[in-house]
Amino acid sequence: MAEREPIPIIGGTGALGAGLATRWAQAGVPVVLGSRSAERAEEAAAKVLTAVPGSGVTGLENGEAAKQGQVVFLTVPFRAQSENLNNLREALAPGQILVDCTVPLAAAVSGKATRSLGVWQGSAAQQAQEMVPEGVTVVAALHTVGAPTLSDTSAELGEDVLVCGDRKADKARVARLIELIPGLRAVNAGALEMARIVEQLTPMLISVNSRYKAHAGIRLTGLPDADHWA
Amino acid sequence: MAEREPIPIIGGTGALGAGLATRWAQAGVPVVLGSRSAERAEEAAAKVLTAVPGSGVTGLENGEAAKQGQVVFLTVPFRAQSENLNNLREALAPGQILVDCTVPLAAAVSGKATRSLGVWQGSAAQQAQEMVPEGVTVVAALHTVGAPTLSDTSAELGEDVLVCGDRKADKARVARLIELIPGLRAVNAGALEMARIVEQLTPMLISVNSRYKAHAGIRLTGLPDADHWA
Repeated sequence: MAEREPIPIIGGTGALGAGLATRWAQAGVPVVLGSRSAERAEEAAAKVLTAVPGSGVTGLENGEAAKQGQVVFLTVPFRAQSENLNNLREALAPGQILVDCTVPLAAAVSGKATRSLGVWQGSAAQQAQEMVPEGVTVVAALHTVGAPTLSDTSAELGEDVLVCGDRKADKARVARLIELIPGLRAVNAGALEMARIVEQLTPMLISVNSRYKAHAGIRLTGLPDADHWA
Repeated sequence: MAEREPIPIIGGTGALGAGLATRWAQAGVPVVLGSRSAERAEEAAAKVLTAVPGSGVTGLENGEAAKQGQVVFLTVPFRAQSENLNNLREALAPGQILVDCTVPLAAAVSGKATRSLGVWQGSAAQQAQEMVPEGVTVVAALHTVGAPTLSDTSAELGEDVLVCGDRKADKARVARLIELIPGLRAVNAGALEMARIVEQLTPMLISVNSRYKAHAGIRLTGLPDADHWA
């Protein structure tokens, strides 16, 4: 079997990036954590390696990291999304998929994490689609999976990831990567514009979490068992 | 034990109202279906009585129906929300709770049911709060529970209802009524303004339903088992 291509995570030193890296590392999937500084990326990789010894996690500067795999995850706070996408203009190439996980929380401008910002393009993901180089497609996903739950390797996951994008084939590639993490089911939530709804789930969950002292996730009931992505 | 107060459902001849009436009827809860015409309300009640013989379902003109219980459910399409609230101005009295279930689908103005309208006040529920008489409070709920599933008395429910409102006591009263229906769990989703997020779940679910040929609902994972409303 050919060696599996690594998954680049831009903003991989943040909580969501580190959590995803930990879970993929546990599943035996190689990950490249990206950061503005290669040194910080390597430090973050070392932390994941401590949590999951022997796993294939490395750290690189964001631009270098983005070149290591076809499907690149962007897990930066919304405040930093534009800057990161600007910096990636030379790194991303046609045919790549950028998975935007950012959520326009009002916290980005000193507002509440239980409220969101209106984004001119409709959603953070649609803003990303406007900013990536020609030929790169954006898929939106992973807004509702909590970083603390991902990083707690003893926690069992059992929730859905709502995936938005304009081409089913692209979404299916992303879904396959997400479903390498046990306990996550990827659900096709529609076109990229549907991200304007899916991104809103995060402030709602943050509100529920503070009230229930919980780490809530989303699950859709009533879906058929068949593999939708097949 | 005192007889239980009936639950008025304004717009009770529509699919959601009839579905809720059916489930409450099964649970032994008296329901008053409201409609613009008393005759249509009685016809709708007769249908529920056929589905659930011997249950306490009656039909009245909307204004009369709204006076029969303290917690009044509004289940009309968004297109008709304002008109119905105008008509209820004389019927609703201080201390009553109006449970707004309307969703501002773009279908209200010939758009898609998988898209939504921007509502000036932020959400249909906040528009309702602006329109009800002084002293009536609005709680938003039941946006994500599908009418076909409710009306199919052989279908087992197992999903959450996200409840938004500005006072926990009001939400708790509504939650208790919702949880009289087996298989529905009411979750405190925050202040009424959070309805602008929760109402958006409906177009997303409509999109998922058409793709998966399903009747999807929402379930939050990771919440504690304890009764949050106690």
